[in-house]
Amino acid sequence: MQENYKGKAYDILKNLNIEEGDLIEIKKGDLRIRGILLPSYSKDDRIFVIKLDNGYNIGISIDNITEIKPIEKKSSKDRESERREVHNGAKSEIKIISTGGTIVSRVEYETGAVRPALTTEEIIQFLPEINEIAKVDAEVLFSILSENMKPEFWVKIAESVKKAFDEGNTGIVIAHGTDTMAYTASALAFSLRSLQGPVVLVGSQRSSDRPSSDSAINLLSAVITAKYAPFGEVVVNMHAESSDTYALVHRGVKVRKMHSSRRDAFQSVNDKPLAKVLWKERKLVMLNEKYISKKDETLLDAKFDNRVFLLYYYPGLDRDFLEQMLTNTKIRGIIIAGTGLGHTSSDHIELFRKATKDGIFIGMTTQCLFGRVNMNVYTTGRQLLDAGVTPLEDMLPEVALVKLMWVLAHEQDLEKIQNLMITNLVGEINPRHTLDLFPRWSYE
Amino acid sequence: MQENYKGKAYDILKNLNIEEGDLIEIKKGDLRIRGILLPSYSKDDRIFVIKLDNGYNIGISIDNITEIKPIEKKSSKDRESERREVHNGAKSEIKIISTGGTIVSRVEYETGAVRPALTTEEIIQFLPEINEIAKVDAEVLFSILSENMKPEFWVKIAESVKKAFDEGNTGIVIAHGTDTMAYTASALAFSLRSLQGPVVLVGSQRSSDRPSSDSAINLLSAVITAKYAPFGEVVVNMHAESSDTYALVHRGVKVRKMHSSRRDAFQSVNDKPLAKVLWKERKLVMLNEKYISKKDETLLDAKFDNRVFLLYYYPGLDRDFLEQMLTNTKIRGIIIAGTGLGHTSSDHIELFRKATKDGIFIGMTTQCLFGRVNMNVYTTGRQLLDAGVTPLEDMLPEVALVKLMWVLAHEQDLEKIQNLMITNLVGEINPRHTLDLFPRWSYE
Repeated sequence: MQENYKGKAYDILKNLNIEEGDLIEIKKGDLRIRGILLPSYSKDDRIFVIKLDNGYNIGISIDNITEIKPIEKKSSKDRESERREVHNGAKSEIKIISTGGTIVSRVEYETGAVRPALTTEEIIQFLPEINEIAKVDAEVLFSILSENMKPEFWVKIAESVKKAFDEGNTGIVIAHGTDTMAYTASALAFSLRSLQGPVVLVGSQRSSDRPSSDSAINLLSAVITAKYAPFGEVVVNMHAESSDTYALVHRGVKVRKMHSSRRDAFQSVNDKPLAKVLWKERKLVMLNEKYISKKDETLLDAKFDNRVFLLYYYPGLDRDFLEQMLTNTKIRGIIIAGTGLGHTSSDHIELFRKATKDGIFIGMTTQCLFGRVNMNVYTTGRQLLDAGVTPLEDMLPEVALVKLMWVLAHEQDLEKIQNLMITNLVGEINPRHTLDLFPRWSYE
Repeated sequence: MQENYKGKAYDILKNLNIEEGDLIEIKKGDLRIRGILLPSYSKDDRIFVIKLDNGYNIGISIDNITEIKPIEKKSSKDRESERREVHNGAKSEIKIISTGGTIVSRVEYETGAVRPALTTEEIIQFLPEINEIAKVDAEVLFSILSENMKPEFWVKIAESVKKAFDEGNTGIVIAHGTDTMAYTASALAFSLRSLQGPVVLVGSQRSSDRPSSDSAINLLSAVITAKYAPFGEVVVNMHAESSDTYALVHRGVKVRKMHSSRRDAFQSVNDKPLAKVLWKERKLVMLNEKYISKKDETLLDAKFDNRVFLLYYYPGLDRDFLEQMLTNTKIRGIIIAGTGLGHTSSDHIELFRKATKDGIFIGMTTQCLFGRVNMNVYTTGRQLLDAGVTPLEDMLPEVALVKLMWVLAHEQDLEKIQNLMITNLVGEINPRHTLDLFPRWSYE
């Protein structure tokens, strides 16, 4: 089977009777590369994709290859048992729900369209190691770029998770684009309670046809987390550092994409990661002893009201723009990403007072991201409190926004909304910060 | 002179004939504290403020003090020469412009009002070490909490800086609240070009009556930077790490307040700090060899148009809210803090296309903060480019916003605005990132 290869690459494989799954060796000048031939989804028909011993998948251009030879054919018994593994009807332990994003993408370069690749068979083919860890079953729920994610999709994902637990799975992996993965993690955390097992979002910053792709490591780590984690929480499982030794598992309501392109872009903010995944050793090491344990039955309550706005505060914000937003007939709530400990210009406090009197929820977070809002230190903070603005502790602005969408779909009364917003539902508020939560910028 | 003390504390000092400036020793149980008595600006009349040998100012409650004794009177010669130093009419080298904020605050707790304390005399009294570094002169420009800062104040600060250079100063220190210090730094960087010397913004995260105050270290470091720095740039000079050994000097257009309360809250994003200040050794050590050097004459061009909006993008953003903002008759430009490499939901791209056709500038930054926008990788990015959205490289959202305010006050034509926005004027775009620009979160 060389069906995923085309052109020159296909001809070479066909000629040597090398099939996907076979162990091969390629010589290129002084370089000797040994690994399992994987299917290629590259538009480039002059590339072989090889899975190395260390878990990496790499693409090798056929140019200047001096020798290519089969070392060991994949046995037909292995092929057969793999097929049986997939189709034997045994119940799965881990459900992989695919929603789209780079991790599952085979980009059709000509059209720019993204095609999902995570059928169960394709996952096993891409990452045979998964079979050693758990019996997985995959479902393509939808296939969208995560920038197009929205509340109605959050509801569908939450429903799929609930169904997968009801069917007997003990852990769920959700393949998701990275752009809005943290928002979806929050949405699921508020929608799914008393979880029977971990719900693990996973993505990839670099697609699987790139040499430095984090797809394989992230997906493998996510399955390890879904299988072994002791908690019933929604988490984000992503690559953690440049030397490829482990992935980190972040609490879904305490994580943020902090870099546009790095593989270790996802980092916990104002909380410790829950665990570290030593993917080579297939081990999960807990880092944070505070977690929500697994429960007997997963509760689903996924409703969102998006008549909210995230206001990023800045000097010079025009009063008219603010007033227009606060007096829109639709608006029900605003999360301010204020300055410092939770401030705005005092010029605007009367507008906020009027809005809260009209029943609009106004919550304060900090645009610093790290640290906690404290509106009792300076005059402006105290005036904002007096105007009815609710301080939201150390919640991230984005998390507070998603929580507000969820709360507004459940409560009408402003006081009840305010109470729910300051109630720690799923770890979105961390009452105690240690010094090591702030990352280190070091310039020695 | 005990004039800044009241009540019980005043009585004790008066009794022992201890004056501000004297070296004293206080015993409290096993604790023996030796230092210079400073004026107290606390409302608490049961507190002494002492300057320790290590540079710290600490407040000591008079409760449980077992002994207090004068060790060495400040000589009248010293007092006299200090007074002469201040009033001898010699030209200053460093001008300290005070705008308000915690660093210069004596909070009147009863009213909540903040009173500036930075007359030249008070600075010398607070930090006599400054005399060893440079001849300083101080000016109270205004006294506002920085959350109330706005473009018209930026203009006034810029004018004061220009005036101070024209008068012969070779470095400027600006005392400023921390909440919006980074915004002001950007505003000054775009308004003042070909600087004759460093313009150093400095603030304090903890007021000088608190034991862990960073006021003294920061102010001293800022004066060292203003005196010795080889560059003509607007910078932020703040405390850098928990062990109090140095401060960091950040490029004004590449710095962000990253924590609501820590003293090392200010950190460079997408660039290296320019320098490190070893304040004990009175030394400035350059860390970044790329800087703008000093010029012969400072150019002032401070104009801002605030008909702009900073849109923090999120899933579920209501189309009506967005449309209302984009069709407001006043709006001239929008900076989007998009997801990932610079995306929004594709549902909204047509609204952006319409806006850019109407002459509204729309620029894209990333809410990840770290890393660069790249709108050529995914379909959504390419569609946004096609709709006329301008990718703003690695500029911070806040910096792009302030730059846009400045650019809009200088250009009417959309194409010229777009060109200026992607032109690197003062280091706001860093074309090359090294791996060490991303801070380290380590969980071993």
